[in-house]
Amino acid sequence: MGEKRPFDILNSSLNNTVVVGLKGGNEMRGLMVSYDVHMNIVLEKAEQLKDGEVKRGIGTVLLRGDSVVYISPS
Amino acid sequence: MGEKRPFDILNSSLNNTVVVGLKGGNEMRGLMVSYDVHMNIVLEKAEQLKDGEVKRGIGTVLLRGDSVVYISPS
Amino acid sequence: MGEKRPFDILNSSLNNTVVVGLKGGNEMRGLMVSYDVHMNIVLEKAEQLKDGEVKRGIGTVLLRGDSVVYISPS
Amino acid sequence: MGEKRPFDILNSSLNNTVVVGLKGGNEMRGLMVSYDVHMNIVLEKAEQLKDGEVKRGIGTVLLRGDSVVYISPS
Amino acid sequence: MGEKRPFDILNSSLNNTVVVGLKGGNEMRGLMVSYDVHMNIVLEKAEQLKDGEVKRGIGTVLLRGDSVVYISPS
Amino acid sequence: MGEKRPFDILNSSLNNTVVVGLKGGNEMRGLMVSYDVHMNIVLEKAEQLKDGEVKRGIGTVLLRGDSVVYISPS
Amino acid sequence: MGEKRPFDILNSSLNNTVVVGLKGGNEMRGLMVSYDVHMNIVLEKAEQLKDGEVKRGIGTVLLRGDSVVYISPS
Repeated sequence: MGEKRPFDILNSSLNNTVVVGLKGGNEMRGLMVSYDVHMNIVLEKAEQLKDGEVKRGIGTVLLRGDSVVYISPS
Repeated sequence: MGEKRPFDILNSSLNNTVVVGLKGGNEMRGLMVSYDVHMNIVLEKAEQLKDGEVKRGIGTVLLRGDSVVYISPS
Repeated sequence: MGEKRPFDILNSSLNNTVVVGLKGGNEMRGLMVSYDVHMNIVLEKAEQLKDGEVKRGIGTVLLRGDSVVYISPS
Repeated sequence: MGEKRPFDILNSSLNNTVVVGLKGGNEMRGLMVSYDVHMNIVLEKAEQLKDGEVKRGIGTVLLRGDSVVYISPS
Repeated sequence: MGEKRPFDILNSSLNNTVVVGLKGGNEMRGLMVSYDVHMNIVLEKAEQLKDGEVKRGIGTVLLRGDSVVYISPS
Repeated sequence: MGEKRPFDILNSSLNNTVVVGLKGGNEMRGLMVSYDVHMNIVLEKAEQLKDGEVKRGIGTVLLRGDSVVYISPS
Repeated sequence: MGEKRPFDILNSSLNNTVVVGLKGGNEMRGLMVSYDVHMNIVLEKAEQLKDGEVKRGIGTVLLRGDSVVYISPS
């Protein structure tokens, strides 16, 4: 399965900005401060994006892993 | 997985106002008085939001964890 | 997880009127006479609501937990 | 969880007419001749309903529990 | 749960024509030659139906149980 | 459950052309070179179909079982 | 189940370009640097595609297995 494992990218992105794609098409961008094995993720200073544009500020937010489609460090 | 864990944010939000995003696009805002490991959540003095506007008052409401997309302390 | 647990609200709502939001956007309102750990719920004297308006009377109805989004005592 | 349990309503509806709501919005009405713990249900003399109107006769039909939203004895 | 069980109808429909409703609204009609406990089903001489009309011939087809909504012997 | 089992059709279709229907309505047609118990399937010389027409060539593709609706040997 | 198994194609595609189809219709194309048994996948130098056209560059991205529909080495 390669030298890297998928979750390595989460660990190396802690305290960095990530974009998280959610089911339904929304994206959240913010500082990832924690995650768990279910891909539950906490972002701080988060913003909700729609078509790449900032829609609104969210502050701190817990994203439920079941709703996550992708996570990209920026 | 960082010093914090995702559920810490739930514990620290008890008895505070949170906004909960649900599958389908609705949001509920209210005082979080309980939650469990499935992310089942009880809000009091809850309001249903649509596009950020208050749609109606709900009072007390139990949100089923399976329908939760995100939870944000306000 | 607070002094209360999410299911406490179900127990305290037995034999009282509740509104149950279902996946797809419909709501059912009625007297909750039983529930179980899967959030399967039986309402009596139930009415189906659409956008807050009574659409039709249903009588007794078993709601499958998997379809439940929220439950609110009224 | 009350004196009654949700599945009691299924047992007491055996050999009686029920309306079953399915994911996607269709309803089936017929004589319930069997069910199991997954809420798989067999109706006889079943009719498919759309917006409360009979769309067509189906005869005997096995409804997969995973697709069931609600069951109402009529 | 009655004298009959839901899967009895599958067994008694072997080598008979059935209509299978699938998530998304399509139906397949054909000779049911096998099934398993997951409701995976094999039809022979199958036709895809749309709104009750034959859309095209399919021949032999394995339907994944997870996509099945209902099964009706014709 | 009959003399045949649903997965028999997969085994007998190895190295033959199959059409695979996916959630969302797309179809893939190609030579099935492997599958597993989750209905994960690998096609070679695959083409994506839309409404029965070839939309584009795909080459080799792994289809995730969870997305499979039906599989038909052609 | 054939001489090859579905996951073999993932292993042989490590460090090669793949196109990943996601629920909802988007595709991601990039260099696959890791995967796991849940089909969680990490792409580097990834691009988001829409109808086969590059929509935007993503860089590194972790795709959650539950959202994957297909994976095709290019």
